[in-house]
Amino acid sequence: MQSITSDSYAVHFNNKAYEALNDHLSQKGYSKVFIMVDENTHEHCLAPFMTNIAGEYDYEIIEIESGEINKTIETCTQVWHVLSELDGDRKSILINLGGGVLTDLGGFVASCFKRGIAFINVPTTLLSMVDASVGGKTGVDLGALKNQIGVINQPEMVLIITDFLKTLEERQLHSGFAEMLKHGLIKSETYWNDLKKVDDFNNLDELIYQSVVIKNEVVLKDPTEQNLRKILNYGHTLGHAIESYCLEHPQKDTLLHGEAIAVGMILEAYLSNELRQLPDSALEDIKTTFLSRYTKVAFSNEDIKSILGLLKFDKKNSHGNINYVLLNSLGNPEIDVRVPDELYNKAFAYYAES
Amino acid sequence: MQSITSDSYAVHFNNKAYEALNDHLSQKGYSKVFIMVDENTHEHCLAPFMTNIAGEYDYEIIEIESGEINKTIETCTQVWHVLSELDGDRKSILINLGGGVLTDLGGFVASCFKRGIAFINVPTTLLSMVDASVGGKTGVDLGALKNQIGVINQPEMVLIITDFLKTLEERQLHSGFAEMLKHGLIKSETYWNDLKKVDDFNNLDELIYQSVVIKNEVVLKDPTEQNLRKILNYGHTLGHAIESYCLEHPQKDTLLHGEAIAVGMILEAYLSNELRQLPDSALEDIKTTFLSRYTKVAFSNEDIKSILGLLKFDKKNSHGNINYVLLNSLGNPEIDVRVPDELYNKAFAYYAES
Repeated sequence: MQSITSDSYAVHFNNKAYEALNDHLSQKGYSKVFIMVDENTHEHCLAPFMTNIAGEYDYEIIEIESGEINKTIETCTQVWHVLSELDGDRKSILINLGGGVLTDLGGFVASCFKRGIAFINVPTTLLSMVDASVGGKTGVDLGALKNQIGVINQPEMVLIITDFLKTLEERQLHSGFAEMLKHGLIKSETYWNDLKKVDDFNNLDELIYQSVVIKNEVVLKDPTEQNLRKILNYGHTLGHAIESYCLEHPQKDTLLHGEAIAVGMILEAYLSNELRQLPDSALEDIKTTFLSRYTKVAFSNEDIKSILGLLKFDKKNSHGNINYVLLNSLGNPEIDVRVPDELYNKAFAYYAES
Repeated sequence: MQSITSDSYAVHFNNKAYEALNDHLSQKGYSKVFIMVDENTHEHCLAPFMTNIAGEYDYEIIEIESGEINKTIETCTQVWHVLSELDGDRKSILINLGGGVLTDLGGFVASCFKRGIAFINVPTTLLSMVDASVGGKTGVDLGALKNQIGVINQPEMVLIITDFLKTLEERQLHSGFAEMLKHGLIKSETYWNDLKKVDDFNNLDELIYQSVVIKNEVVLKDPTEQNLRKILNYGHTLGHAIESYCLEHPQKDTLLHGEAIAVGMILEAYLSNELRQLPDSALEDIKTTFLSRYTKVAFSNEDIKSILGLLKFDKKNSHGNINYVLLNSLGNPEIDVRVPDELYNKAFAYYAES
C-alpha cells in the first residue's frame, strides 16, 4: 500500500513501514532508541518488530501496564524517571509500540521530556491504527476525564503493521471497527455500506487504509480542531461520558472505547433525527448495524443521570455549552449543535427499545 | 517604554501592559479568566493587578505554594483538577501572576489542559521579568532535575509591571540581577559594564528593558534551541547542577537560581580562560564582579563530586557528552564546548581561592 502523507510526517504500511523505519534510524543517528511496550505488546509484538530492524542501535525497552486505568500522569512520571535514569537525552527517540492508550501516553511523554524528543507510533490495535495513528493528539486521562491533559504534537512517522492484528481478541477488533464505521457516517455513505458487509476481520487492510485516508483528510484541514476536525467526535460526546462512567464504577462492566462510542453513535443518531434532517431510514440503519455487532448495554435511570453529569467535562464545550456533532444524512455531519435537555432520556429510551 | 515584539506575541511594560491586557480580554471573550498566584503574589500583587483590569469577567483565583520545591508535576495535577472542577474549558485563559516558578509551571499547565488553552504571563520577580518572560519555555522539575518536563509554547502576551519589584526582598533582586549580568557576558560588553555600575535597585526599568531585548533577539533567531539559543545557558550547566544539589540536600543552604548561576558563571569563566580565549583580565573582572555581589559558597570535595554527578542530566547533553557554553571574550560566547574532567576541580579551586 502507498504511504499516506500527513502534516509533517507519513504513515507507512507493512513492508514499507520497516523500510521507512530503517532508513530513518540510520539517517538520524539518535543517541538512544527507547521502545515502550505494555505486557501484551512485549509478549506478542516486540520480537517480530525487532527482527525487522536492521542495524545496531543502543536500545532500551520500557514496559508500562496496559489499560485505560493506567493512562495517567502518574504513569508518565514513572516513564520520565526511567528515561532520565537510562540517560535519555534530547537526541533520543521513543518508539511507542502498542494500542491507543500507549501511543497517546507515549506521544505525550516524548513531547514533554526535556521539552520534546522525537517519537514514532506503531499502533498495534485496530482502534489505534484507524484512530490514534494520525492527527497528533497525545495525552492522558485526569481521573475519569478522558484525555483531559495532553498536547498536539506530530510523530516522526506512523507505522501500520497489520500482522499485529492477529494477536488481538475479537472484542478488540470490534472496538476498532466502531471507529471505522464512524468514518463512514461522517464522511462517506459508500464506505459505510462497504463496512456493513464485512463479516471477517482477517483481511481488513484496504478498509484500514481508507479509514486512515479519511481521518488524515480531516485533520490536515484543521489540525487544532477549530471546526472541521470536530466531526471526528461524532458519537463521542455521549460515548466518552459513558466510557468515563463505566471506568469510574468498577461494578459496571468496563466498555472498550469502540463499544462505548457505538452506544454514543446510536444516541446521537436519534438526536440527529430529532434535531436535524437525518432520515428515519438512516436512523434505523445505524441502530440495526451497531446492535448487530455490539451487545446492548443496560442503563438505569441513575446511570443516565450520572452520565449526563459528566458531559460538562467534554473538551469540545465552551462557555458552558455542550457542543454536539450531529448528522444531516449519512456522510454529512454538522458541528456545534446544542441539544435540549429533555431529549436525552428519549434518546436512551430509543436505544433501549427493541 | 515601547512594547517588544516576540514570536507570536508582545511584551508590554507598565501602563501599556494594562492597556494591552484590557484590550485583549475585551476582544477575545474568554469563557473564564483564571488567575494563578502563590501566597506571596496573592498578598502583594493580586489586588493592584485586579484594580487595573477594566470590565467584568468571570474570574477564579487559583493559589499554589511558592518555591522551587513545588515546581512539580504533582502541583500541575492539582491545578488541572481545580481547572476541571471550576469548569475551565478550551476557551478559558490562565493568567500567571508570579515569579519564574509560577510562570513556568502555569505555562505548562495551560499548554496541556485540554491539549492547550491560552495563557498570559505576568512576571513579578526581577528574575522572571528578564529571564522567563520571553522564549516560550514552560515546565516543571522532575525530582531534583530542573525543568526536565515541559514544552515550548508561547503566551498570548507578557506583561512586565516593574512596580511589583518593590514587593521583593533584596536577595530576590540580586538573584534576577545575575541573569542580567549573564546577558551582558553573552551579548554585550557595554551592557555588562553598565550593569557593574548599578548600586541601587530602585530604578532598573531601562536595564530590564535592555535585558528583554537581548533575550528576545536570541530566542527569535532560534526558538527551539538548536544552536544560538544555547548561549543563554552560559553559567547554567554547572549552575543548575549546583542548584539541584542544594535543593536535594536540605542540610545545605538553598541557593536562589541567580545565586547558583553566579557561581556557575565564575566556574565557566575559568573554563573559558583555560579552553578558549577569555583573557585573564576578563576572568578576574567576572570573578570580582560576582563575588562583590554574591556571598561565596563553600563546597567540600564530597559536594563537588555529587554536583559533577548531576551534570549528566543537563538538557543540552547529547550522545553522552556534556555541552558547555564558554566565552571567547566578554560578549562573545561559543556553544557545544567539551570540558576535560580534570579541569573541574581546578575550576572549583579557582572559585574558592581569594
